[in-house]
Amino acid sequence: MFENSANRTDLSSMGEFGLIDHIAQHFTPAQASTLKGIGDDAAVIAGNDQLTVVTTDMLAEGVHFDLAYMPLKHLGYKAVTVNLSDIYAMNATPRQITISIALSNRFSLEAIEEFYVGVGLACKKYGVDLVGGDTTSSQSGLVISVTAIGTVDKDHIVYRSGAKVNDLLCVSGNLGAAYMGLQILKREKKVFQENPQIQPDLEGHDYILERQLKPEARKDTVDALQKAGVVPTAMIDISDGLSSDVLHLCKHSKVACHIYEEKLPMDQGAFDSALDFNLSPVTCMMNGGEDYELLFTISPADYDKVKEIKDVVVIGHVTEGDTQAFLVDKSGQLHEVVAQGWNALN
Amino acid sequence: MFENSANRTDLSSMGEFGLIDHIAQHFTPAQASTLKGIGDDAAVIAGNDQLTVVTTDMLAEGVHFDLAYMPLKHLGYKAVTVNLSDIYAMNATPRQITISIALSNRFSLEAIEEFYVGVGLACKKYGVDLVGGDTTSSQSGLVISVTAIGTVDKDHIVYRSGAKVNDLLCVSGNLGAAYMGLQILKREKKVFQENPQIQPDLEGHDYILERQLKPEARKDTVDALQKAGVVPTAMIDISDGLSSDVLHLCKHSKVACHIYEEKLPMDQGAFDSALDFNLSPVTCMMNGGEDYELLFTISPADYDKVKEIKDVVVIGHVTEGDTQAFLVDKSGQLHEVVAQGWNALN
Repeated sequence: MFENSANRTDLSSMGEFGLIDHIAQHFTPAQASTLKGIGDDAAVIAGNDQLTVVTTDMLAEGVHFDLAYMPLKHLGYKAVTVNLSDIYAMNATPRQITISIALSNRFSLEAIEEFYVGVGLACKKYGVDLVGGDTTSSQSGLVISVTAIGTVDKDHIVYRSGAKVNDLLCVSGNLGAAYMGLQILKREKKVFQENPQIQPDLEGHDYILERQLKPEARKDTVDALQKAGVVPTAMIDISDGLSSDVLHLCKHSKVACHIYEEKLPMDQGAFDSALDFNLSPVTCMMNGGEDYELLFTISPADYDKVKEIKDVVVIGHVTEGDTQAFLVDKSGQLHEVVAQGWNALN
Repeated sequence: MFENSANRTDLSSMGEFGLIDHIAQHFTPAQASTLKGIGDDAAVIAGNDQLTVVTTDMLAEGVHFDLAYMPLKHLGYKAVTVNLSDIYAMNATPRQITISIALSNRFSLEAIEEFYVGVGLACKKYGVDLVGGDTTSSQSGLVISVTAIGTVDKDHIVYRSGAKVNDLLCVSGNLGAAYMGLQILKREKKVFQENPQIQPDLEGHDYILERQLKPEARKDTVDALQKAGVVPTAMIDISDGLSSDVLHLCKHSKVACHIYEEKLPMDQGAFDSALDFNLSPVTCMMNGGEDYELLFTISPADYDKVKEIKDVVVIGHVTEGDTQAFLVDKSGQLHEVVAQGWNALN
């Protein structure tokens, strides 16, 4: 689907080192702290008096992505941004990444280049350097592992564990759109499988498809918080779904929280699609996942500063309790939130 | 083979977060610089005025290991040590690692625990902290990705690129033993497949089997060099085979080198096994790979210090040229070294 067979380079013909050289030439370090990128036993990053944060994520074909509707360029982009999202969730700035891939020989050099074009676009957009990685064959399927490294002033680090009773619960952007994008892609794949003559009907769904295929990390939110002089008391990125991730935050902070249904932000196109699919928009927002938005708590004293930040809304507040969350519906009734986030082990 | 079916916990029953909690309880950070290990969006490492080095490696079932003869505990140990070897090859001290695994549901919790027992043993032995990772299912096979992070004084960092003409070429330990261990394991697997009644005959091969199944990283060599006040001019670890890795060193340093066949170090058991298999011992040392020994160059002025270091021998010297190496045989004849290292993409 993403390869031109007339222009196919067999990967084994160039060997791993040839491939590494080939990839490395497209990645010139931009960070002053990157003393050595690809091409030695390890990358070298200059130390400083800040904290270093490290995160890693693995993406497996058939589990995290389906190449039937995920172009490799988007996959490369997404593999980077989902890791950067974890760095931003520490209130830190990403600096370097490493990428390892295991792939079967059904992939050509051109296919892998597409993947790295996407990686490069994300690196450029977020100002991070690709400093290393590993490339190997696999028995089947494509497995991608990304490690991201960032820095943060020690006074600005934000864990999941700092939320206090009466803090306000905030979220960036909107929720549920990536999930709706996935539903549309799955529907069109099924239509295509049943009748390959029918062209996929993706028109009018650009935004929610992009939320699924090419998610962004909320650098803008972290920058805006810093500019406003606000350090959240706790923060996490929403990857598994709001319900699952808010419970992580509550667990680590040993608190509970109330979330107000009417405050939950949803894109209109995602809302309309949810109704088209006979899905509850609230359920999509709570459990959809892959939003890569930031969920954070702030001291009530910071409310005046935060309310001015674009694309951030207060959706609830922290209460006494332990590892519990309640959704307050429009009639004021409380519903306990149960984690229904996506389970990578199913 | 490594599971007791009477004591099998289905991984999907505990979920990814349950598994993470389960794993995390066995890994208490020991490094002062580990401010936050497993359990947030990212690990947090305190900065300092040293350089940070980062390396990553991916191991795929059927490509890098065969579970028919690789116990999961050893695999966990090896996954760590091969990455630490890359950190030592920068003359640095490993501090933290992250591990991600993609595994199919044929693995039980007990199997994964075995893997992490091995990881834990390596962490303890080398004094590194496991600070994060990711666990996901895969369509088939086991894929492991490890990232290791280390630190080094900026005056002590050693790249592949610093070798100068007349420098002495040194190697730690011995070569070819891991390859011979692999040959024995493959032979016994074949015997077992042909007749499951026959017990594997591994007796008397403990050392070379351990070199394959449970390799160590040369912390001792890096420590000894530091104690002797010697900073190598260039260094690389031997993972793909001496022939391949010496050419990497020559390429990055833009030099050539002579290696003296009679100086190449081989374990007697490995030597005997090579003859048993009708293999040339020299070929096994040059091309076997997976030695995880350090190959480095030193200024001739440091020879008196290095000759006192246990388990290090001078095997040759650096000459004018570019990306070439010659093996000098016992009669003084020169043979050009061709990289025949293992290719992960075949």
